[in-house]
Amino acid sequence: MNTAVGNGFDAKSGPLARREHILDTAQACFVRNGFRRTTMIDLARESAIGRCNFHRYFGSKEAIVEALARRDRARCAVLVAELGRTASPRAVLTGVLTRTLSGITRETAVLRLDLWAEAKRNAAIAAVVERTEEARAWLGGMFSLLALSPRCQPEALFDTINPLMKGIIVNRAVLLEYDSGATIAFLDALIDAGLRGELPHAPFTAVQLNR
Amino acid sequence: MNTAVGNGFDAKSGPLARREHILDTAQACFVRNGFRRTTMIDLARESAIGRCNFHRYFGSKEAIVEALARRDRARCAVLVAELGRTASPRAVLTGVLTRTLSGITRETAVLRLDLWAEAKRNAAIAAVVERTEEARAWLGGMFSLLALSPRCQPEALFDTINPLMKGIIVNRAVLLEYDSGATIAFLDALIDAGLRGELPHAPFTAVQLNR
Repeated sequence: MNTAVGNGFDAKSGPLARREHILDTAQACFVRNGFRRTTMIDLARESAIGRCNFHRYFGSKEAIVEALARRDRARCAVLVAELGRTASPRAVLTGVLTRTLSGITRETAVLRLDLWAEAKRNAAIAAVVERTEEARAWLGGMFSLLALSPRCQPEALFDTINPLMKGIIVNRAVLLEYDSGATIAFLDALIDAGLRGELPHAPFTAVQLNR
Repeated sequence: MNTAVGNGFDAKSGPLARREHILDTAQACFVRNGFRRTTMIDLARESAIGRCNFHRYFGSKEAIVEALARRDRARCAVLVAELGRTASPRAVLTGVLTRTLSGITRETAVLRLDLWAEAKRNAAIAAVVERTEEARAWLGGMFSLLALSPRCQPEALFDTINPLMKGIIVNRAVLLEYDSGATIAFLDALIDAGLRGELPHAPFTAVQLNR
C-alpha cells in the first residue's frame, strides 16, 4: 500500500508522520466542504504537499477515507487492549462504547454523516461503510461471552442498540449542545437487560404494521 | 413567498403543480449528487424550466429545502388528522411513527443525512433542521396527554426515543435490505414503558463516565 516513499524525510517528519498529517488535514477538509465537493487538488494544497508527491501517498479520496476508517479501527483495538489489562470484559464493553460514542467530536460525526449519505452514490465508500458495520462481529462476540441467560440473543441485542448508537452520532453532528451521557447510560442499561435475556421483545402486531 | 406567478398555466400544470414538480425534481437531484454539489443551474435544467422563471419559484437551494421540509410537515399533519378520525390518540401516535419511519424511502433518508451534515456548514440549513426538531413539541404533547403514571417524564421519554428514530433513518440510508419493523416495534414498546413511568433510568455512574 502506501509504504515508505524514500524522499529523505527525517524520523520526525518521515513518510509515516506525513501520512498522518495528510489524514488529519483531509478529515478537516472533508468536514469543512463535504466529501463530495472536496477534490484531490484541494487536499494536496491544504496538506502543503506537491500534487505528484501527494499521489504517492493516496491515489484517491476514497483511499483516504479507507485509511481514516482503518486508523479508527486500529485506535479502537488499542483502546480494547488497554482497558482489557485492568477491567473485566463487561467493563471493557462499557468503556469502549462510552469512549467511542461520547468522545466523538462534532467534526468526526459530520464526516460520518457525509460518508453514510455518500455510500448511496459511491461503491468504494459503501465498502468502507460496510466494513465499519463489522462492529457487529465484535459486539456480537462480546454479548455471547457476557450472556447471563440462555434467553440472551446476541444478534437481536446488536440490532436493538445499533440504531441507537447511530442516532447518538447524528445528534452529536446536529445539536450544538449535545450531552450523550444519558443516552449512553440508557444503551448500557439495554445491554444489561439484553444480557439477562430481558430485553422487551417486539410485539408482533407492531412488526406487522411495517409490512 | 412563492405565490401564484400568473404566467398562464392551466389548472393542471399551473404554478402550484409546477412548484410541486420542482420540489420532486430537486429532491431527486439532491439525492443523486448531494446537496452541496447541486447548483441552481442543475435544478433549473432538471426541472426543464428556464433559469429566470425558475428563480420566480425559488431564490436558492436553501429555499427549496425549506419548502420540502414544510411539505413534509404538512403531509404529517394530514396523516395525524386522518388517523385521528378513527383511531385513539395512542394509536395515532403509533401510526404516525410507523408510517413516517417505515415509509421513508432510501432516497429521502439519504437526503436527510446530507442535510444533517450540511447543517454544520450552512446556517439556513441548520435552521431547517432545527425546525424539524419541533417534532419534540408534538411528541412531548402526546406523551403528556397519554401518560399513565405521574412518574412519566415526557421530555426524558422524547430524549430516549429521539436518537433511536434518527438511527432508523441512518440504517434506511445505509443498509440495502433494511427492515425497520423490529426497531419501530421496540420504539413503541419503549413509549409504552415510558408512559407507564417504567423507562429504565440512566445509572448515575454511566452518566459520569461521559464527563
